[in-house]
Amino acid sequence: MSLLVVGSVALDSVETPFGKRENVLGGSATYFAAASSLLTRVSVVGVVGDDFPLDELEFLRKRGVVLDGLEKVAGKTFRWKGKYGFDLNAAQTLETQLNVFEHFQPKLDAAARRAERIFLGNIDPELQMRVLDQAERPRLVCADTMNYWISSKRAQLLKLLPRVDVLMVNDSEVRQLAGEPNVMKAARAAQRLGAKVVVVKRGEYGALLVEAESSFFSPAFPLADVVDPTGAGDTFAGGFLGLLDRLDATDGSALRQATVMGSTIASFTVEEFSLDRLRALDLSQIRRRFEAFRTLVHFDALPEHVA
Amino acid sequence: MSLLVVGSVALDSVETPFGKRENVLGGSATYFAAASSLLTRVSVVGVVGDDFPLDELEFLRKRGVVLDGLEKVAGKTFRWKGKYGFDLNAAQTLETQLNVFEHFQPKLDAAARRAERIFLGNIDPELQMRVLDQAERPRLVCADTMNYWISSKRAQLLKLLPRVDVLMVNDSEVRQLAGEPNVMKAARAAQRLGAKVVVVKRGEYGALLVEAESSFFSPAFPLADVVDPTGAGDTFAGGFLGLLDRLDATDGSALRQATVMGSTIASFTVEEFSLDRLRALDLSQIRRRFEAFRTLVHFDALPEHVA
Repeated sequence: MSLLVVGSVALDSVETPFGKRENVLGGSATYFAAASSLLTRVSVVGVVGDDFPLDELEFLRKRGVVLDGLEKVAGKTFRWKGKYGFDLNAAQTLETQLNVFEHFQPKLDAAARRAERIFLGNIDPELQMRVLDQAERPRLVCADTMNYWISSKRAQLLKLLPRVDVLMVNDSEVRQLAGEPNVMKAARAAQRLGAKVVVVKRGEYGALLVEAESSFFSPAFPLADVVDPTGAGDTFAGGFLGLLDRLDATDGSALRQATVMGSTIASFTVEEFSLDRLRALDLSQIRRRFEAFRTLVHFDALPEHVA
Repeated sequence: MSLLVVGSVALDSVETPFGKRENVLGGSATYFAAASSLLTRVSVVGVVGDDFPLDELEFLRKRGVVLDGLEKVAGKTFRWKGKYGFDLNAAQTLETQLNVFEHFQPKLDAAARRAERIFLGNIDPELQMRVLDQAERPRLVCADTMNYWISSKRAQLLKLLPRVDVLMVNDSEVRQLAGEPNVMKAARAAQRLGAKVVVVKRGEYGALLVEAESSFFSPAFPLADVVDPTGAGDTFAGGFLGLLDRLDATDGSALRQATVMGSTIASFTVEEFSLDRLRALDLSQIRRRFEAFRTLVHFDALPEHVA
């Protein structure tokens, strides 16, 4: 078992109808690691500036997260500032400062090169490709992307897709990638472009897993208190890959369980600001909510006389 | 077993990215009856004008739908004209002609008054109340409503809710009714207003059943070909109540099956324009797709070592 994430480690400033936080821990790799480390051993490759409070990551280190690949360089850390209205599905980006992330060149050390499973966070597809070029023989590659790369680095993304086992995107991204408004058709098109499996994240509406032969749907957990949706997608990915790594499996049953595990951990993430809920989370709480998902979707077969 | 629907019987003109139809069969009662009659015996109370092609309803009569309560009066039938873009979740209403529906006064004959289960389609809550005043002792009352009534006839709607067993509305309606953006909290608020059970229809994202003690989520079936979403909500209601009437049950297990049956029949509805897909539908196809829903949401429990 070994899992690697390459992505951003950031300082976020977030405002939602339920409060605001300034310069708190954020970034795709950070969220991913906080989620997946609840299930398996994960290494982080990323970059921060000399303004970054490294002791904020101490809780990750205590959970066994390997931070050897987190470079610290001169300059300011990647910063994102966003705002959510009552429709918590859509963030309004107020400011993005790439800072040291602008010249990020992911470097994998000997241990990271041997990772069995890799999550390519939402970064330039050229950099995602360079990560794969350094990896020895990953058994599973999962990649996120976004509208910006789909339009501005389409050729590079299309080159990457045949090397991707699981493409993990949201509704609008898969539609844009495929040029097709129907999500099922778009997912099939993404498969023809090379991704073996497509996971479509739909925020509060759940997630759809599209395999070659079958599809699976996991709802989002119906929460009464959603405080900050930031990081939901990356902790979904962390739960997904964390479980696959722990199970050491990629069959259909494991992929379905992984999708629900992603939804499970994401449902905790949004209950508090930043990574606060993830800090306090333990496996018994995760297991209970995973089981609650089973109850949430359970229904009995029709009786024979309805036929 | 006996089921009654009160609602509109209409002529719709619909345009979607996949084609257009003029003056085709529509209306909440029509869609509801076409769906529920696949499962049980249903009676329709409604009104049409003298321009209405009654022979268009012959396929419903053949399925045992009782049309004695469908009045034909002088004037033009209720007409709706709408358009959908590629986001098929939201219709743009181009024209609504109430015509004979404007002065509709639902009258229940002796048989209709004895109906065990009643669906109050989306009409003025005052009329919905008058239907209940005529009913002898329904065992289950399910009501739809819309933003227009929630704002313009709020007092009447609030009077109705304590007489409603299942309130069946969409996301924005339950939010508006409760004045609460979180759907779970809004559903709980609707329960405090009197509705015993709340079903939140979420279009292509599925449906949420909120009971007193537990919740259930059914996805929408992931379709590659959605042609016309008109009537999805009313056929969801038809499948839901049709199954409850056929099972003669309202326990938690039956409500969950009914929610999936609603999603099942709605998923057929949207595959063709107007009621075209429902005409050709039979129980074996329904049963197969209901079973496909079980596969769609099935996942295995976590192994013991993940604990």
